[in-house]
Formats: sequence, structure tokens, C-alpha cells
Amino acid sequence: MPGIGSKSAARLAYHVLEMDKSRAESLAQAIIEAKEKIGYCDICFNLTDCNPCSICKDTGRDVSIVCVMEEPRDVAAVERTREYRGRYHVLHGQLSPLEGVGPNDIRIKELLTRIGEGEIQEVIMATNPDVEGEATAMYIAKLLKPIGIKVTRIAHGLPIGGDLEYADEVTLSKAMENRREM
Amino acid sequence: MPGIGSKSAARLAYHVLEMDKSRAESLAQAIIEAKEKIGYCDICFNLTDCNPCSICKDTGRDVSIVCVMEEPRDVAAVERTREYRGRYHVLHGQLSPLEGVGPNDIRIKELLTRIGEGEIQEVIMATNPDVEGEATAMYIAKLLKPIGIKVTRIAHGLPIGGDLEYADEVTLSKAMENRREM
Ligand SMILES: [Zn+2]
Ligand SMILES: [Zn+2]
Repeated sequence: MPGIGSKSAARLAYHVLEMDKSRAESLAQAIIEAKEKIGYCDICFNLTDCNPCSICKDTGRDVSIVCVMEEPRDVAAVERTREYRGRYHVLHGQLSPLEGVGPNDIRIKELLTRIGEGEIQEVIMATNPDVEGEATAMYIAKLLKPIGIKVTRIAHGLPIGGDLEYADEVTLSKAMENRREM
Repeated sequence: MPGIGSKSAARLAYHVLEMDKSRAESLAQAIIEAKEKIGYCDICFNLTDCNPCSICKDTGRDVSIVCVMEEPRDVAAVERTREYRGRYHVLHGQLSPLEGVGPNDIRIKELLTRIGEGEIQEVIMATNPDVEGEATAMYIAKLLKPIGIKVTRIAHGLPIGGDLEYADEVTLSKAMENRREM
């Protein structure tokens, strides 16, 4: 299971094996029901139990801004901040030449289709701050800029509340490089 | 000792107590010599064994940029990145109304004196990414902007190589807010 280490997986497995039979059956039933109910939103490709999802349906949100993310769990992280009021687009992965993941293997085409509808003015690239996430952001930016879409990248720098002294060197370099006028 | 937790301090103390007498004496001597040799640079107030310090003396460095930091250990962190080629100014603390640390208790006056000499064009506020560090950066920015000095703030955002999903909410909010055009 993605996002679950081998130790946690073993703990889960033991937990299931030690359940009494009726609880194990109702767990299995719940999994089947979840799989039946939960699917991808036709607009943003986030996980949802209705279609379009509650975020895409929410008329209070700004349709002109789309935040592009790698995974549904990233959407959950941004939603927890309760600050962002635009919509999302979930790629379901990142470009990774080494693992054979190319532009057609993640939902870039679907993003272009959404942009073609004309409402989107800004695309925030919020892919992960690692090499593949950066490459994915740059690839999509190169596709979108000639169309006249504003493409922005989520900031890299020092985490808030941290201690400068303990920042790793790459982050500190980037934080210096990306300094902003006060 | 600042920066040393109580456990590490105890470990150090036991280590000293278990030394043989001659080693303890030579350690004590080394401490006295260090205290005699190491002082503050008259220009940047970093710790140094020569005056001005090797950074302030280095003619290969850009005298028009000064990076303002809270402590000498922060200078060491930025130097480890091997990217920054300007000079430093060490405040020796941060403004903290709760602890009674005001503008006259850290080396702000000395920064103004340096700026008065006319070579400095940009001041990078690289105080810690916490509340007091932010307040210190804003206080100094308010002093310097009317003089016509460019004041920048080190970037806040996601640490490089991390995982967006695990970023805390305040950092993620800030990373979204401080997004930059690609
Ligand atoms: Zn949706
Ligand atoms: Zn110096």
C-alpha cells in the first residue's frame, strides 16, 4: 500500500488476523463499499464519493485558479490550511524518466482540456519540492505559458517556526536565492 | 550553554570529570586561549580570531550586499551552502518584547552605521523564520526603506526534497501565498 511502511503494513496485517470473524467480514464489506462509492472526479481527478466532487461543485470557490498536485492526499493537505479558495487538478503522479512515467501517463492532457474551456487564468504548480516534482512543474509551465496562462510555483524556502541553523544546505541556498523584497 | 540540551551538558560534564588531571588542565588552558583569541569582528560582529574577520577582509566578496543574521552559528550555516558571496551582519539576538529585548539590545545601531558608510545597496533579512525573527526583520525593514536601501527577506516555503503532504499547515499556507511566477 502506498504511503504505508513495511512495519505499519505488518501491524495492520496482524490486526486483521486477530480480529474475530464477524469484524473481519464487516471490514471487508466496508472496503468493497468504499471501492464502489469512491471514484475520481471527472473535473479535477481528486477522490470523491460524488461527481463532480464537492470542491468542483462549490460555487463559492474561485474557478480562475487551479492548483496542480501530484496526489489526492496533497489536496487534503492544502485543504487543511483553510486558506486556498481556488480549485485543484490531480495529476496522479509525477514525470519520472527513470521509472518510465511520461507526460501521457499522468493527467496533463486533462488539464489542457480544462484550460481550453477558458475560465482558468492562473495555474499554481504545487507538485512536490523534489527533483521529479520540479521537472513536472517546469514541463507543464512550458506547455501553458505560450497559451498565455499565468503559471506560478509554490514557494521553496525555510519552514515557518523552524531554526535557520538547522535548515539543510539546499533549502537554505534556495531560501537565499528566492528572497523577496519586503 | 546555549544550543546544548541538559542531557548533552550532563554528558560533557561527566566526560570532563572522568578526564585525567593533565588533560583537564590542557582543556581549561585551551578554553582560556580561545576566549583570549576569539572575539567579535568590528565590522560584522561575527566570531573571529582576527579583526576584521576573514569574510569582511575578503576582497572577492560583494560589499554591496549584507545578510543580517541573529547568531554567529547562522553565518556558519549560510557559509556551508557556498552560494552566498556578500557579507554578513550579526545582530546577536532578536527583538523580543516578552523577554525585554529591545532595539538597543541587539546590534541594529551598528548596522545603521555600516549602511551610513554608503557601500551597502541590499540588506537580506535572514533572521529566523519564527515570530520574533519575523518581527525583527520587519522592524529593521521599516528603518531602512526610507533611506532607500533594498530590503529583502529570505524565502519561506517548503523545504527542498521534502514531501508536500507532510508540510505543516502554516508552512504550506505560506508556500501557497508566496508562490512565484515561473
Ligand atoms: Zn473535482
Ligand atoms: Zn566581519
